[in-house]
Amino acid sequence: MARFFLTGGSSIAGGTAFILGEDAAHAKVLRLRVGDRLVVCDGLGKDHNCTVTKITPDEVEAEIFETVPCQGEPSVRAIVLCGLPKGDKVDYIVQKCTEAGAAEIWFFQSHRCVAKIGEDKDRAKKVSRWQRIAEEAAKQSGRGVIPTVGLLDDLAEAFNRANGTDLPMFMYETAERRPLKETVESAGAVASAAIITGPEGGFEPFEAELAGVMGLRICSMGPRIFRCETAPVAALSALMYATGNM
Amino acid sequence: MARFFLTGGSSIAGGTAFILGEDAAHAKVLRLRVGDRLVVCDGLGKDHNCTVTKITPDEVEAEIFETVPCQGEPSVRAIVLCGLPKGDKVDYIVQKCTEAGAAEIWFFQSHRCVAKIGEDKDRAKKVSRWQRIAEEAAKQSGRGVIPTVGLLDDLAEAFNRANGTDLPMFMYETAERRPLKETVESAGAVASAAIITGPEGGFEPFEAELAGVMGLRICSMGPRIFRCETAPVAALSALMYATGNM
Repeated sequence: MARFFLTGGSSIAGGTAFILGEDAAHAKVLRLRVGDRLVVCDGLGKDHNCTVTKITPDEVEAEIFETVPCQGEPSVRAIVLCGLPKGDKVDYIVQKCTEAGAAEIWFFQSHRCVAKIGEDKDRAKKVSRWQRIAEEAAKQSGRGVIPTVGLLDDLAEAFNRANGTDLPMFMYETAERRPLKETVESAGAVASAAIITGPEGGFEPFEAELAGVMGLRICSMGPRIFRCETAPVAALSALMYATGNM
Repeated sequence: MARFFLTGGSSIAGGTAFILGEDAAHAKVLRLRVGDRLVVCDGLGKDHNCTVTKITPDEVEAEIFETVPCQGEPSVRAIVLCGLPKGDKVDYIVQKCTEAGAAEIWFFQSHRCVAKIGEDKDRAKKVSRWQRIAEEAAKQSGRGVIPTVGLLDDLAEAFNRANGTDLPMFMYETAERRPLKETVESAGAVASAAIITGPEGGFEPFEAELAGVMGLRICSMGPRIFRCETAPVAALSALMYATGNM
């Protein structure tokens, strides 16, 4: 069923949803008609199930017939934090991690990053484009929340965010580390978790050391080396599986 | 460490590995020198660890100093079978599922496929390109085996291949099905498993019914709808996690 989020101008008043702007254009592409059903998400985990009552060139009006908790949200709040990769790998990570159920997706600069975060102006433009990719993927995959996407200045900030969760995990390819499975299972039930992965060249040993000192769990994803854009998706899928969300 | 497979002309004789053709060109790109170490995989799960002894414009020779089972191979033999998607999604599935540890990756035509398998000549060309993507990904990710990639004529053939494994699973978005986790856990220890996913539009109800009749386990990947190119990677990652390979 078509899903719309209360962003970009759409709104709810009384028992009616007003689909405006780009979303109205999208509704036209979907060939919605009076009587069709659609879902308006408040973006905070609630779905308003609606029936279309009126269509004009600029707007779709729909009557809300029930409001329910969104079924698409996982029971664990997962934060994904990735060393900023080059090119369209960011787009890929944002899209796939949204489908897999991430609540937040952050990119940070670390020692071996080839990509650069750039100037403030540039930064805002990039982030808003990534945010649109997350919104699109959230609609398509039936999420009830659009993940927050953003840039962090450095690894320390990523560690801080990860440490705000019940299970902060740092994926590392060498040296001392525990299998992801052992780490997740020994943590028991968690309400939130963080997955940190590196850029193309991985992490420097001193970065892994710092992660350990900061209290993060150093994890192995097995003997195979994942590409930097595959690792977060694979680890997040494993986490969703482990926590009964797949 | 640089990895080469015994394909495309490279060979082993006595205690020496001869890196030829494209692999020799690749060795040049990697700037390998006499004394450097490299790995030659037999593609069947064995790694020959070597030291470079001679470099000529067309060839690299390396002495084998030990032969060990490849650490990169998972304990479960996973077969991924996907409804043929459009465009470069096939490339994506082949690359990511190789990283995640698939032993075989097959594409089949199902009712809602928009992409077409094409004529025989076309077919062979496509498959050989996909096979090269698998080889490249196997090298990069440290696999000991290059997954077999191929095209199947129809869903029935996919069901047959899946039924050759200990745990044949059919991912489906609606109707009666069990969570992936429940299915995998209730199967106990398995030496092999199959993951079947649909094309862009998913499966027709009659296809899911047929899967059930054929004895496949109809599975849910949770309430979120994965894109057709994400589903196999997410399910395979979950399987690798569940079987202690991540």
